[in-house]
Amino acid sequence: MHSFEDLAGQFKAYFDVAHFPAHPASLYEPNNYFLSLGGKRVRPVMCLMGNELFDEIQPDAWLVATAIELFHNFTLIHDDIMDKAPLRRGLATVHTKYGEPTAILAGDVMLVVAYDYLNKVTHPNQKKLVRIFNKTAREVCEGQQLDMDFEKVPTVHMNEYLRMIELKTSVLLASTLQMGALLGGAGEGNQYNIYEFGKNLGIAFQIQDDYLDAFGDPAKVGKQPGGDILANKKTFLLIKALETATGAQLKQLQELLATNPADKVTQVLAIFKSCGVHDWALELKNKYVSNALKHLEDIAVVSVRKKALQELTAFLVQRDY
Amino acid sequence: MHSFEDLAGQFKAYFDVAHFPAHPASLYEPNNYFLSLGGKRVRPVMCLMGNELFDEIQPDAWLVATAIELFHNFTLIHDDIMDKAPLRRGLATVHTKYGEPTAILAGDVMLVVAYDYLNKVTHPNQKKLVRIFNKTAREVCEGQQLDMDFEKVPTVHMNEYLRMIELKTSVLLASTLQMGALLGGAGEGNQYNIYEFGKNLGIAFQIQDDYLDAFGDPAKVGKQPGGDILANKKTFLLIKALETATGAQLKQLQELLATNPADKVTQVLAIFKSCGVHDWALELKNKYVSNALKHLEDIAVVSVRKKALQELTAFLVQRDY
Repeated sequence: MHSFEDLAGQFKAYFDVAHFPAHPASLYEPNNYFLSLGGKRVRPVMCLMGNELFDEIQPDAWLVATAIELFHNFTLIHDDIMDKAPLRRGLATVHTKYGEPTAILAGDVMLVVAYDYLNKVTHPNQKKLVRIFNKTAREVCEGQQLDMDFEKVPTVHMNEYLRMIELKTSVLLASTLQMGALLGGAGEGNQYNIYEFGKNLGIAFQIQDDYLDAFGDPAKVGKQPGGDILANKKTFLLIKALETATGAQLKQLQELLATNPADKVTQVLAIFKSCGVHDWALELKNKYVSNALKHLEDIAVVSVRKKALQELTAFLVQRDY
Repeated sequence: MHSFEDLAGQFKAYFDVAHFPAHPASLYEPNNYFLSLGGKRVRPVMCLMGNELFDEIQPDAWLVATAIELFHNFTLIHDDIMDKAPLRRGLATVHTKYGEPTAILAGDVMLVVAYDYLNKVTHPNQKKLVRIFNKTAREVCEGQQLDMDFEKVPTVHMNEYLRMIELKTSVLLASTLQMGALLGGAGEGNQYNIYEFGKNLGIAFQIQDDYLDAFGDPAKVGKQPGGDILANKKTFLLIKALETATGAQLKQLQELLATNPADKVTQVLAIFKSCGVHDWALELKNKYVSNALKHLEDIAVVSVRKKALQELTAFLVQRDY
């Protein structure tokens, strides 16, 4: 049994190989560059943890974890184009550095290579793994499309936003755990529970993310709060505030969204607090964390095996940075 | 045994189903739109023909053919973005109609669905099929990248151009035939020959394409010749002319490339003819057709089974439109 940190270190070493041919460098160098930007590799490590919840880590789990990390990076490269994001982890995004056409192709070929790793899996349930992977991949694309759709409409309902977050963020955490669990020999019921654990954890994580952007301690988060507010980004907090505020307060909030006064962040935060959005978000997060932990509890393995995932949960949703 | 036309009709009926969920329509409607633009479906039909060269068409061949057609359409959607092409088959491209971000995502999800079809294949060699498919997909991406790279450099050597065409166009024709053949029970030697048949045929097809753009009969081709010349597109003809022309003629050609006089097409065509590029292209095409047919001849099945592919060859490389 290993902690997240242990497995993250092991995965880093495993993943640090050439995933692409040398030529043409104009296609593959951008992918090597992007992978070199690093990241916490949360998703592949969760695959290993899903496996180790049930059994020793199988050789196939490393292949699936690699496929998942490549898939995740493919989505980041393409999302950065769609979002016109100049930076990722403080450095130039692929399309900024190499141009959009190459960034599209580099992402495409990264997805193909992810499928190459999946195709090397020898587990009898390999096809079921690919089925889960494909379903998740479709859902992640759907989530990204919904996210873009939501930018263009004035109002988004909470249940629509929740569904978008589920698709864009949660299902990948859920399915990486499930794929690992499947490789570890988990039956259907246990696979269901680990999937639901990941799904609820993912939503809690996103609520925390939205929360920290508004109410985080700048010294800990490492940036000024309110980036989402300045961008009029539809977040758990803004959607809830628009649903809760009435009368003059609602009018003020709508005016703030339509304009960009110098003290926009301060004013919006004041409305958030006055609407109780602050406490509501923490309660909602705790609800999803409880749901997640309930599903983890329901998994039929000795409780000592669950420790690493419980610790990861605490880390992901109680972080204040 | 069926002709290309027979199988194209059968494939059209088979392929005319919903490949995507209904929701979110903002993601999937663009893909349905693009598939509705039609096309000759040459690649999937070649998979069926590759199968039928050896045996009755297997149920799996329809799945692989579908995956190949979806893959091909995915590349078209993304290539159209990269090439900034406003039209495809006379109608708006996906990015023109729905915006680039959606076109990127729609292509992505089409590739994922292609893998879904491959994952349904039950043939014992399913993994080998996916391996061939992945290798081809990587190569097609490499070909597109090289094509874009070549636009930015003053000179491209003939062997570099040939390799680019092989990757961008030929390997998909080659591998769709090979995958069909594999499903039809072909052994390694026959798979090799059918692959080489397709690869040579693909190059011959591209030479014909370049040739018709310059020397085709406008009444038959349906457009004014010289589109490639006006765009300074590096084609078999231009590369050969730059390699062949000397002295004043080379200088004139280089000046024509640097400027855009009203009679550019006429002048460049005159140089092509005076350099003998016209005859050279037909000879080169015939060389690749002969190579293709030689590999078809070497395939160990009764000759009557080869008729449909011989007819297709004649159609693809002797067409004058």
